[in-house]
Amino acid sequence: MIAQQRVCRVARDARRIGASRVPLAKAAPGRKVVAHVATATAEKVDVKQAGSFDFNTYMVDRAKLVNKALDDAVPLKYPETLNESMRYSLLAGGKRVRPALCLAACELVGGDVQAALPAACAMEMVHTMSLIHDDLPSMDNDDFRRGRPTNHKVYGEDTAILAGDALLSYSFEHIARATKGVPAERVLRVIMELGKAVGQDGLVAGQVVDIQSEDKEVGLDVLKYIHEHKTAALLEASVVCGAILGGADEGTIEKLRKYSLNIGLAFQVIDDILDVTATTEQLGKTAAKDLAVNKTTYPKLLGLEKSKQVADDLIKEAIQQLDGFDPVKAAPLVALAKFIGYRQN
Amino acid sequence: MIAQQRVCRVARDARRIGASRVPLAKAAPGRKVVAHVATATAEKVDVKQAGSFDFNTYMVDRAKLVNKALDDAVPLKYPETLNESMRYSLLAGGKRVRPALCLAACELVGGDVQAALPAACAMEMVHTMSLIHDDLPSMDNDDFRRGRPTNHKVYGEDTAILAGDALLSYSFEHIARATKGVPAERVLRVIMELGKAVGQDGLVAGQVVDIQSEDKEVGLDVLKYIHEHKTAALLEASVVCGAILGGADEGTIEKLRKYSLNIGLAFQVIDDILDVTATTEQLGKTAAKDLAVNKTTYPKLLGLEKSKQVADDLIKEAIQQLDGFDPVKAAPLVALAKFIGYRQN
Repeated sequence: MIAQQRVCRVARDARRIGASRVPLAKAAPGRKVVAHVATATAEKVDVKQAGSFDFNTYMVDRAKLVNKALDDAVPLKYPETLNESMRYSLLAGGKRVRPALCLAACELVGGDVQAALPAACAMEMVHTMSLIHDDLPSMDNDDFRRGRPTNHKVYGEDTAILAGDALLSYSFEHIARATKGVPAERVLRVIMELGKAVGQDGLVAGQVVDIQSEDKEVGLDVLKYIHEHKTAALLEASVVCGAILGGADEGTIEKLRKYSLNIGLAFQVIDDILDVTATTEQLGKTAAKDLAVNKTTYPKLLGLEKSKQVADDLIKEAIQQLDGFDPVKAAPLVALAKFIGYRQN
Repeated sequence: MIAQQRVCRVARDARRIGASRVPLAKAAPGRKVVAHVATATAEKVDVKQAGSFDFNTYMVDRAKLVNKALDDAVPLKYPETLNESMRYSLLAGGKRVRPALCLAACELVGGDVQAALPAACAMEMVHTMSLIHDDLPSMDNDDFRRGRPTNHKVYGEDTAILAGDALLSYSFEHIARATKGVPAERVLRVIMELGKAVGQDGLVAGQVVDIQSEDKEVGLDVLKYIHEHKTAALLEASVVCGAILGGADEGTIEKLRKYSLNIGLAFQVIDDILDVTATTEQLGKTAAKDLAVNKTTYPKLLGLEKSKQVADDLIKEAIQQLDGFDPVKAAPLVALAKFIGYRQN
């Protein structure tokens, strides 16, 4: 039972965007692959085009910008162990999807990318904190992440817990301290949105319900709750905070909120689907973990075809939210939705 | 060695104000004890007088106000396990020293107590988070706090970690969301001050250095760093944030910052002293833990008399910062300094 729970936990953990078992996207079906390049984080991405928009170059540039800002935000100072531990996980690579969403939303509504950069970094700090804490022995007990020993394997459980706490705390402080040229009311609203995405209405709540649902049959409402809170909530905050910082009106914020919730839920539905298709078609080395532990998934509850339809509808509906915008300005968010929605592994 | 470390950890942990081994103050030497009453948290406090100021009644009233606000701030909702776990530790009693400092500072500078109440609650949320995480098996491994099983003994390590995360995140969100009638710039500044008190410049850093200093000889600079960061930082934030929310000018904020840093450091020096005097005089059931594990303390570095002088000077200097204020308005902060400074256990 413990071993089974362990597998279940790994599968659950891998559902998060950015977890090590989720490689960067292959080309979307029917979309031309233009080139492969190494990202700033030394991972490979495939290019998707949205008109003349070069998604790959865009993501590489954004990752560079964000990685530099993160590096500056958490300098190596006394006590070095704490800051080394924070930096070890924060600067360990990753696609920087949340920062990219935040910056893209800010620019879409006419804001300057610098206005949203501290918030974009904060989203990555929170994401990193959640990974450090989830990897702990009392949680998922993972020894490796992104090909390296997990934080607690290097620095010990006590320091790993404290590094997570410091990153979480600093995410809020950094927004308050480093955001420039934006009215204070907007910055406060961003802090509220981020808090909602983390705590008893956010990813922590999703994690608790997921833990409680292990080895249980749960309904679609509970499954949707887990998916929406564990992953979609922080994607929502990333997009909505970018829009707020860029000065979006309420109608625009709500459109982008819908966009982000849709792509967040779609990511998880697709993760469920891939678990099944991987089993059937013998694709991928981490296949069929949900099936192995009899985990409740979208395909289990709705069937494979209906689940595919749900995911497809979610992505289409997400992209529809961008209809009223200048297509050139909306291209990054369109491409990010497709990147998330049409991945093959 | 493990057992010795364990004792050391307990001693270290107990250094925090509000830890279970630190009972509420007996009367200050030479001060008249007027009455004993039960606080809202069912603990006993002794009365100190500052002129006609009834400190005991004041603290009971403030604890009631804060406990009601905390109860309202974290309602019991889905997922109940998470919120039960948060409430179990948050509403477990305690003197509410940090909220009292926050509210008193706000009123001292002419602010309304309601303006600082969300921040006052946030200080207690952060304090509670630090206690939940410190009690974890990988940290101090404590089974009991305030006479009850610790959070992880009741809810499991995973939920305890997540409850701490949710409380930490919510502390910032709650300030941003619930603070009313205060310019947004001030609220943002409060969030910065709180963040500084928690993360790599605050109590987390202090905890890391304390862990690293176990079974080592450390100098006065390191000992002062630990004391200032583990305890004084959050006391500082409590006072300074109250003052900011009350609209204090920069000079007043800096005076109150000095007041709070002094009482925070004094608390720890006195804790070191009591460990020695308790050994000599056979007072108290948790006596001589620092001596038992050869922990570096103020008396060990400076001698007992010099340490007493340091503590006395710190409290006097703290109270001197309040000299320019209306004595009636300053009475709560004077009494709080004496409460911390002249405690006998």
